[in-house]
Amino acid sequence: MAMVCLSDFEAYAKKYLPKIAWDYFAAGADDCNTRDENILAYKRIHFRPRMLRDVSMMDIRTKILGTEISFPVGIAPTGFHQLAWPDGEKSTARAAKAMNTCYIASTYSTCSLEEISAAAPEALRWFQLYIHRNRAASQHLVQRAEALGFQALVLTTDVPYTGKRRNDIRNGFRLPPHMKLKNLERDFEVCKMSLLDPSVTWNDIYWLQSLTHLPIIVKGILTKEDAELAVRHGVQGIIVSNHGGRQLDEGPATIDALVEVVEAVQGRVEVYLDGGIRKGSDVLKALALGAKCVFIGRPALWGLAYKGEEGLRDVLRILQDEFRLSMALAGCARVSEIGRHLVQFSKL
Amino acid sequence: MAMVCLSDFEAYAKKYLPKIAWDYFAAGADDCNTRDENILAYKRIHFRPRMLRDVSMMDIRTKILGTEISFPVGIAPTGFHQLAWPDGEKSTARAAKAMNTCYIASTYSTCSLEEISAAAPEALRWFQLYIHRNRAASQHLVQRAEALGFQALVLTTDVPYTGKRRNDIRNGFRLPPHMKLKNLERDFEVCKMSLLDPSVTWNDIYWLQSLTHLPIIVKGILTKEDAELAVRHGVQGIIVSNHGGRQLDEGPATIDALVEVVEAVQGRVEVYLDGGIRKGSDVLKALALGAKCVFIGRPALWGLAYKGEEGLRDVLRILQDEFRLSMALAGCARVSEIGRHLVQFSKL
Amino acid sequence: MAMVCLSDFEAYAKKYLPKIAWDYFAAGADDCNTRDENILAYKRIHFRPRMLRDVSMMDIRTKILGTEISFPVGIAPTGFHQLAWPDGEKSTARAAKAMNTCYIASTYSTCSLEEISAAAPEALRWFQLYIHRNRAASQHLVQRAEALGFQALVLTTDVPYTGKRRNDIRNGFRLPPHMKLKNLERDFEVCKMSLLDPSVTWNDIYWLQSLTHLPIIVKGILTKEDAELAVRHGVQGIIVSNHGGRQLDEGPATIDALVEVVEAVQGRVEVYLDGGIRKGSDVLKALALGAKCVFIGRPALWGLAYKGEEGLRDVLRILQDEFRLSMALAGCARVSEIGRHLVQFSKL
Amino acid sequence: MAMVCLSDFEAYAKKYLPKIAWDYFAAGADDCNTRDENILAYKRIHFRPRMLRDVSMMDIRTKILGTEISFPVGIAPTGFHQLAWPDGEKSTARAAKAMNTCYIASTYSTCSLEEISAAAPEALRWFQLYIHRNRAASQHLVQRAEALGFQALVLTTDVPYTGKRRNDIRNGFRLPPHMKLKNLERDFEVCKMSLLDPSVTWNDIYWLQSLTHLPIIVKGILTKEDAELAVRHGVQGIIVSNHGGRQLDEGPATIDALVEVVEAVQGRVEVYLDGGIRKGSDVLKALALGAKCVFIGRPALWGLAYKGEEGLRDVLRILQDEFRLSMALAGCARVSEIGRHLVQFSKL
Repeated sequence: MAMVCLSDFEAYAKKYLPKIAWDYFAAGADDCNTRDENILAYKRIHFRPRMLRDVSMMDIRTKILGTEISFPVGIAPTGFHQLAWPDGEKSTARAAKAMNTCYIASTYSTCSLEEISAAAPEALRWFQLYIHRNRAASQHLVQRAEALGFQALVLTTDVPYTGKRRNDIRNGFRLPPHMKLKNLERDFEVCKMSLLDPSVTWNDIYWLQSLTHLPIIVKGILTKEDAELAVRHGVQGIIVSNHGGRQLDEGPATIDALVEVVEAVQGRVEVYLDGGIRKGSDVLKALALGAKCVFIGRPALWGLAYKGEEGLRDVLRILQDEFRLSMALAGCARVSEIGRHLVQFSKL
Repeated sequence: MAMVCLSDFEAYAKKYLPKIAWDYFAAGADDCNTRDENILAYKRIHFRPRMLRDVSMMDIRTKILGTEISFPVGIAPTGFHQLAWPDGEKSTARAAKAMNTCYIASTYSTCSLEEISAAAPEALRWFQLYIHRNRAASQHLVQRAEALGFQALVLTTDVPYTGKRRNDIRNGFRLPPHMKLKNLERDFEVCKMSLLDPSVTWNDIYWLQSLTHLPIIVKGILTKEDAELAVRHGVQGIIVSNHGGRQLDEGPATIDALVEVVEAVQGRVEVYLDGGIRKGSDVLKALALGAKCVFIGRPALWGLAYKGEEGLRDVLRILQDEFRLSMALAGCARVSEIGRHLVQFSKL
Repeated sequence: MAMVCLSDFEAYAKKYLPKIAWDYFAAGADDCNTRDENILAYKRIHFRPRMLRDVSMMDIRTKILGTEISFPVGIAPTGFHQLAWPDGEKSTARAAKAMNTCYIASTYSTCSLEEISAAAPEALRWFQLYIHRNRAASQHLVQRAEALGFQALVLTTDVPYTGKRRNDIRNGFRLPPHMKLKNLERDFEVCKMSLLDPSVTWNDIYWLQSLTHLPIIVKGILTKEDAELAVRHGVQGIIVSNHGGRQLDEGPATIDALVEVVEAVQGRVEVYLDGGIRKGSDVLKALALGAKCVFIGRPALWGLAYKGEEGLRDVLRILQDEFRLSMALAGCARVSEIGRHLVQFSKL
Repeated sequence: MAMVCLSDFEAYAKKYLPKIAWDYFAAGADDCNTRDENILAYKRIHFRPRMLRDVSMMDIRTKILGTEISFPVGIAPTGFHQLAWPDGEKSTARAAKAMNTCYIASTYSTCSLEEISAAAPEALRWFQLYIHRNRAASQHLVQRAEALGFQALVLTTDVPYTGKRRNDIRNGFRLPPHMKLKNLERDFEVCKMSLLDPSVTWNDIYWLQSLTHLPIIVKGILTKEDAELAVRHGVQGIIVSNHGGRQLDEGPATIDALVEVVEAVQGRVEVYLDGGIRKGSDVLKALALGAKCVFIGRPALWGLAYKGEEGLRDVLRILQDEFRLSMALAGCARVSEIGRHLVQFSKL
């Protein structure tokens, strides 16, 4: 079977992954409406492509927090990569490095930060953080990440409690015994999200800032009010995210929320997005609406499930080719030429 | 089969109830558009969830007419509970009491008010009333309810005649001979709605007020004009309801009508809603749009059909857990923090 | 099988009529979008029902051109009733008379005007007219109709040429040899619409007025501009119609066009509607939007196909019951209480 | 099987063409959303038909760039006609001539310009041009076309690179060895679009103008900004086109983009459209929205696949009959009577 577009990888993963693992990765909260809206929302955004521009020299590179990446697509933090491929997050880190883009390693990795770091030593890596009730444990994680050369902290803000994912409950999902959450102490049990601290507030941003010199990015922002608070609390970036539709069902699609966040932020910090990116033109739409970069979650897992590092590189290369082609067909030769004028919202 | 969400109970009831009973409970008027719209309308309302708020101490209690309930979901009045479970409304009353919420007993109960009252003596019970042509009979019912400790009268306003439910006509639906409408005199025949008085008007609110000290709630209001009339006639509450889509087809979904009613009422009386509540986030949306509490109809019957009192407790507990989780994920720790800012209507 | 609603008659007719006849009656032009929109458009109109009004004495009678009918639903002109039932238009006329409503007999009847007239001598009958190239033939028809006691002329304006109905072309539809267009001279051949005069203009209204004292109603008006012209040319009524979607595909649904026509006419003449009426609440919506009366086309044919006169009476009686119930549930006891406030257009 | 409407030809072609050829002709970019939207968008445009106008003498002729054609539908440039019928573009040219309309021959024809020209010597032919990296080759093509009596140059602007058509990639589509791109030098290889020059800009319009006296039409314009640029650069016409949805997916449907282009152009040059024309009423809508003429792509190929020249004549004749009938039913006897008032955009 030819792997032509990302849904080919999805079909492969659905066919070959154990059902319990597929269900876990595919899961959305409740009725999965937000998960599905993340994708559908792109269909309501139309391009206004421009013709007869010189697009012979395409340059799709960009910078995030000052570091150049090969194109504006990174790897979003998702957990449990060993469920998709034996080498787990080490493969993910290698693929991201090979493609010269950013990988946000999850707290819930099945490889340790040290292993991830060793797999891709010079790569651009960020570290995704949950704040645990045991603050010392979180502090330790932050400091390990900083010491290992991770270049930013991504604080997930939308999991005071875990969303209700019906299939995981039906399947009795838990990590297989031979996999470990290697970044957490032994006594942390998988799927006990009660370890997460639901009392975290904006003030804890100050606490984090006191622990580290790393830039802090907040992930999970969906409103202009929270975007304003993020900027006021001195973060360096915002990831517009609804956790892939796995937390609160029937919130906005991220591409829709992006508009309101970008407008509130007014360029004071970088704004990113994850959720629903399935082809290169989705990336172009997100950038046209103000995202500096997007991150892929499930598609990265499908790539891993297909062929580990190689599969993920395939996924990234397809997205890269599609993004470059979309840009050219829309009349943009450089990322800096992408702007709001390039898209319009369908009246439907 | 794991009972994870309310539609699991629906599937169970559809499978195990006699078709004629399932059809009766599921029935909508005419083409069933309003019945279905009650549910679909929630999909067009999106949350604007707020992050990084302290949601470690969740309090989901509320008060209706001054009485505290464990969460803002009560049991709407529906008839013929023995069709779902042998103990009928006695089980319903016990489940509501166990979960510390309000049960609105229907005039068309298959247990008598005395039986219901004895099954849950200290519980918060309201009594739903139709006004019959035989006004003395209605007066007697009101006085029995008051004497038995029911704490409010809920006057149904949308049944001057019974809606046209095609399947009930095809099935020749009538109550099985061993079930009785115990609250009504022997000579009342089931399904002869002509016993109901279609000449009732707002002036009859005054008549009811003359019979009882109980607060009066009108159920079935869908417009601002009628909401204003209700307030002017001195009622204590309004239930925005379209009778589960069983009366006039192609009226508004209740969640849509709620907006207009709440705006008209301006806080002068409490506003409730029934129709279409299928998960905890539906409750959250209704409260965000101004409802003080919602009531479930069919889901309660599915719970009864599953396991009587225990099944209904399961349904309520699931809704409670989902509501608490939705609140937390939306950034609210207390019911008083829920407000209009939490939702937006989709442009689609 | 119980005949509960109009779609039961549709299902019967589809099952028992010869395919070629079913296809002819069901036909829409081109992609049948307008035919289907006529029905779908009603779903986008929601009621704003009012409660606690005295609806104990329901009066659903109305008057059209000064004559009382039992309820505001008449029989639209459709051709070839013998395709549905051996007695053809005679049965139609009898059923309309039995139900005390108006029957608009078509030029393309398979019974003669004399037969129709004899079948229902005292009934309210109107005559639908096409203007033929042979003006003398049309003049003769008008004068016969007037002499036979038809009380109005309904001039069809939307058939300068016959619409393209794909199935009729595929089926090679033509009237079976034993049926005749009895109102037309022998040398008129069925389906040779070229007999119709495509040069007819508004001035021909004056010509018609010179031939007869009967009131003239124009059928097929869909715009405010034409409505204004109709009034200026002295017609007595307008039927908003798109010929059941059989002429120009992708014009407006009649219920949508009604709004614009009613607004233009400002009560100067009566406005009627046909197309898409399938249940009593559709009638109520049309009246709320300003129609004085509606006419049914295909549902009448389904009734005939079911049981001739009796079947059509069943159809009318069901509509009557549904209309009365809808009115009551919306809070109206008399037709004069129906108004624009009763409906709103869905934002969807 | 009767060939009644264009989708009959589509069904025939899908059934009888080799899958690889069908897939190539049917292909859209990426998810094919724009390909499909081109058709769906027409359903959202409703007619406002006018009645009682004299439509006895129908005249559907129009002029494009001063030359009369029998009706406002021409043949859009598409490649590889021998995939559909052995005689390829020679049949296409003959059919267009027989029907007295315009044929835009593609650079990627499988017959040479000389063959096409010889097949229809006196006909109205335009020549579609890509600008190749080898400018001398393009110059040569332009001069051959001018010498052979082609009457206009149509510059395709939306293919700096070829769109991503998934099925073609899966099928490994390439032209069969016995077919040649006869207009291009031998060393041009099929599907190596890298021969096309992605550095072409508006200034190259001036270069083209320096090569030829032929009028220049730009094809692929979708925005008012580009329409303005086209006019300023002295083109004689604009074809609103998205390449049948084969280039940038999720741009606008052409009928939607037409509105914005027509408004910008303000009559300074002629505006045409291709994409999604499937029946005569689509043509009428495009003209009502300001197109001077439309062009059909895939339907022409279906006609060829059915019966070569004869099949394409059938397609054109059906469109012609449908267009004439739609005009008449909308109340227009001449093309000059068609105007913006004839249509409205559905609110849905």
